[in-house]
Amino acid sequence: MNKILRVSCPDEKGLVYKVTKILYEFDLNVVRNDEFVEGQSHRFFMRTVFTGDCDQVALEKELKAALPNDCKIHLVEEKRKRIIVFASKEHQCLSEVLVRCEYEELNAKVVAVVSNHQKLQPLVEKFQVPFHFVDHRNISREEHEAQVLEIVQRYDFDYMILAKYMRILNASFVAQFSNRIINIHHSFLPAFKGANPYRQAFDRGVKIIGATAHFVTAGLDEGPIIAQDVNSVNHQFSAKDMSRAGKDIEKIVLAKALRLVFDDRVFIYNNKTVVF
Amino acid sequence: MNKILRVSCPDEKGLVYKVTKILYEFDLNVVRNDEFVEGQSHRFFMRTVFTGDCDQVALEKELKAALPNDCKIHLVEEKRKRIIVFASKEHQCLSEVLVRCEYEELNAKVVAVVSNHQKLQPLVEKFQVPFHFVDHRNISREEHEAQVLEIVQRYDFDYMILAKYMRILNASFVAQFSNRIINIHHSFLPAFKGANPYRQAFDRGVKIIGATAHFVTAGLDEGPIIAQDVNSVNHQFSAKDMSRAGKDIEKIVLAKALRLVFDDRVFIYNNKTVVF
Amino acid sequence: MNKILRVSCPDEKGLVYKVTKILYEFDLNVVRNDEFVEGQSHRFFMRTVFTGDCDQVALEKELKAALPNDCKIHLVEEKRKRIIVFASKEHQCLSEVLVRCEYEELNAKVVAVVSNHQKLQPLVEKFQVPFHFVDHRNISREEHEAQVLEIVQRYDFDYMILAKYMRILNASFVAQFSNRIINIHHSFLPAFKGANPYRQAFDRGVKIIGATAHFVTAGLDEGPIIAQDVNSVNHQFSAKDMSRAGKDIEKIVLAKALRLVFDDRVFIYNNKTVVF
Amino acid sequence: MNKILRVSCPDEKGLVYKVTKILYEFDLNVVRNDEFVEGQSHRFFMRTVFTGDCDQVALEKELKAALPNDCKIHLVEEKRKRIIVFASKEHQCLSEVLVRCEYEELNAKVVAVVSNHQKLQPLVEKFQVPFHFVDHRNISREEHEAQVLEIVQRYDFDYMILAKYMRILNASFVAQFSNRIINIHHSFLPAFKGANPYRQAFDRGVKIIGATAHFVTAGLDEGPIIAQDVNSVNHQFSAKDMSRAGKDIEKIVLAKALRLVFDDRVFIYNNKTVVF
Repeated sequence: MNKILRVSCPDEKGLVYKVTKILYEFDLNVVRNDEFVEGQSHRFFMRTVFTGDCDQVALEKELKAALPNDCKIHLVEEKRKRIIVFASKEHQCLSEVLVRCEYEELNAKVVAVVSNHQKLQPLVEKFQVPFHFVDHRNISREEHEAQVLEIVQRYDFDYMILAKYMRILNASFVAQFSNRIINIHHSFLPAFKGANPYRQAFDRGVKIIGATAHFVTAGLDEGPIIAQDVNSVNHQFSAKDMSRAGKDIEKIVLAKALRLVFDDRVFIYNNKTVVF
Repeated sequence: MNKILRVSCPDEKGLVYKVTKILYEFDLNVVRNDEFVEGQSHRFFMRTVFTGDCDQVALEKELKAALPNDCKIHLVEEKRKRIIVFASKEHQCLSEVLVRCEYEELNAKVVAVVSNHQKLQPLVEKFQVPFHFVDHRNISREEHEAQVLEIVQRYDFDYMILAKYMRILNASFVAQFSNRIINIHHSFLPAFKGANPYRQAFDRGVKIIGATAHFVTAGLDEGPIIAQDVNSVNHQFSAKDMSRAGKDIEKIVLAKALRLVFDDRVFIYNNKTVVF
Repeated sequence: MNKILRVSCPDEKGLVYKVTKILYEFDLNVVRNDEFVEGQSHRFFMRTVFTGDCDQVALEKELKAALPNDCKIHLVEEKRKRIIVFASKEHQCLSEVLVRCEYEELNAKVVAVVSNHQKLQPLVEKFQVPFHFVDHRNISREEHEAQVLEIVQRYDFDYMILAKYMRILNASFVAQFSNRIINIHHSFLPAFKGANPYRQAFDRGVKIIGATAHFVTAGLDEGPIIAQDVNSVNHQFSAKDMSRAGKDIEKIVLAKALRLVFDDRVFIYNNKTVVF
Repeated sequence: MNKILRVSCPDEKGLVYKVTKILYEFDLNVVRNDEFVEGQSHRFFMRTVFTGDCDQVALEKELKAALPNDCKIHLVEEKRKRIIVFASKEHQCLSEVLVRCEYEELNAKVVAVVSNHQKLQPLVEKFQVPFHFVDHRNISREEHEAQVLEIVQRYDFDYMILAKYMRILNASFVAQFSNRIINIHHSFLPAFKGANPYRQAFDRGVKIIGATAHFVTAGLDEGPIIAQDVNSVNHQFSAKDMSRAGKDIEKIVLAKALRLVFDDRVFIYNNKTVVF
């Protein structure tokens, strides 16, 4: 099975040499290797896919000894991620994730779906996935999140996916799952932040609409962007048509971003992503 | 030669019938016909390309009699537009317009170039086009515009093209040339309005950059959008690389927008465009 | 409810006038109107969406009387099409169609699925759609098609959708369902016709791969193209990666083509399509 | 100044380690590093950009000693390439190259233009570039090429660029400039090989047209592809409109391919390209 080594640290001479030397000495076979030095902050990123048997503890120890102290080193095995998907009333992104996970097109298993509406329960049950309805009516945002939190804590999971979940999460909730919540925003960020982006796009008369998948941070729609894509529109598109065209691109962008994240190809740094 | 009839008015039953009836009675041959009813404001737009000889005055009279009072009716002949191009120090959009007009790929003739820098004078002179340098240093914005105005008034022209002209025009200047000034904005509006959009895009870590051609109104970067397009970028792009990739798309978007406008295919309404 | 009038005939003066005159006299309200004259064959196409109550028989009679003899006139009501989907072992296009029909994103109902493999039966049954397995092993192509024919004839349906059905249909079969069979071809036609297009694309080292939705005619992959789109690839893509990237674009192109066909927006002429 | 090391050879364990070790020992600073192992042929490609002073002869000697015998090792300095551009009657690609070289947007200098027509001489002379008209009328293909050869041999040049040069080069001519001739083909190869691709595209009714930049080999339009891109078209596009839309994309694809080649980012192997 493939293993993946992820390294990030301030740049200095010889980093690639030092890493590849150790892999060579452990008799490991590099299948793919990507590095990148961010020019402004002089930060070094490296992702190496390799095969071969080795004493993983010894390998990590050697790497830590050879590389700078402040180096982040992760050795991960290619494994299926466990995810909880959040949705509201729109089915497109949710069904895209359910189908792709069912057929292992995404390297993940949906362990549960959480929703503030009941509408998508029949869809979720087609795929034998537990569906948790958490009504948001007549309770405070804090109460609602507390109930959600209670549910997600029952599961062992790697990522939460907000698949058109039309609720804003409190900073305190987000802080507990740093770099583990991924959102699909229904517009080409940073244009049209917030609610009703297709109405905004329609009113502005744009000729292109887009979608943005990003990690969730405390600032609404301000987290590191993972993937974006666009569709052409024109004056014949009503706000509703724009929304429909938008949904077509949203699910594609979300699926693309999830594939990258689940394959451990994404580094986060300085509120941006490096994607190998 | 082709003639073009452009009609816009509040929608009502029978408008297409009334227009095509008159064209039929004048024995004119419709080559292409586009209509559109904007669903929110119920406004009707129609553009008809036709051939055949006719008494144009009589035709217009008949159309006015048959159509609602508040109807805008324009009969135009396909003719080369006369344009003044404004530029500063970047050559890409200017050279694109100069070359395309030289070879009649755009239905326009560049009658003059105005610039607040001397850098592009050699380029302009290759194409035997008058170059007017209007220095902006040590004078007020108003004085500078007065000098520019004095120059443009020497020319008979249809449109002003801001081909990366890095000066903001006063509302009073813009008001004199309503719907006749076209700008290329170096980003995907409404994201990254104002200065240094590529730096903003770099800092935000976007995965796509774009360009927007629009009519100029008093509000900076707020006028009706004519055309937009995008290019993919990634973490390997420095702010300078983004700027380079942006310039590649800017000139294509500007050329596309100009082709549409010069072929009389663009209607402006409600700060948006209808493009046939 | 909206009604749609579709007209096609050799071009002559006054066609738009004649049609819109009759609609006006029947007091019908035109919501959207598209016309096109094909420049080479001088053929006229018109699609008009209108609202209002009328005696449909009388309307058709008037139109036939006013328009040329060889004119094709169709009055259709916007209604959900009934479709039979054919698939083999790949789920992507089939699941896209099932989900979109389930949520009425496509104006169609899947009345049955036919497959030469059993693999996708569980998927189809999630959506309560009859699944017909017709084994192709140990029988001739003719025998297989006879069995398929027997099944489809049990259903009232408008279109057959070949959603990655990896069998070539005989000309005699196709002839019975002229202009009613739609295929998604896993490449950018006319490049890479026939089998294993992604292997061909990989071997040729292309930088872009695509997909093509088209009506099926007797000539393999030669029928009228409805929609096409592409994805970028690079040297890092193995033939398998290209296939994966291809599947992502195939389902999008198929969905786009189906939306156009089911909304009665596609005319076929001269082995090409006019799409309004 | 940046220097670039390019290595390609059959893959084996430790190649990255061996190269980076030597660069480290020479106290050189790696600015960017790309590697790729082609999965089918197990060939290794590496391109390293580095800064720092060194004894280049000694460096090459060390690398040769450390790496396999059949390894191709190239040490190049980032320098402006010298190019001869070939054209016929279409100006778009030629003017794109002339303008971009004039403003150093491409890392190249146009040392001469060769054409079998006189039409573009005025354009070329605007840029103070020698223009060589070689009439092809009334002489054989061999004679014509002999005359062209005599001219190009007067120049010191790195690449020949066929910027819509509408003549097929003999295999014997091509063989003399292996991997040094770049062509822009006016279609999305491998569809529509040969002449009149836009007519072919029009007749086939495609919804997308493209352009392909490739190295020239003995087989017409069969050489390694460097870059491709596409534009959407529809039924309203005549063959002439498709040609116009095609020219817009041709020049962009050619410019993109030239940027990659002139920056030494392209490897050729197995009639394909690896592009870093």
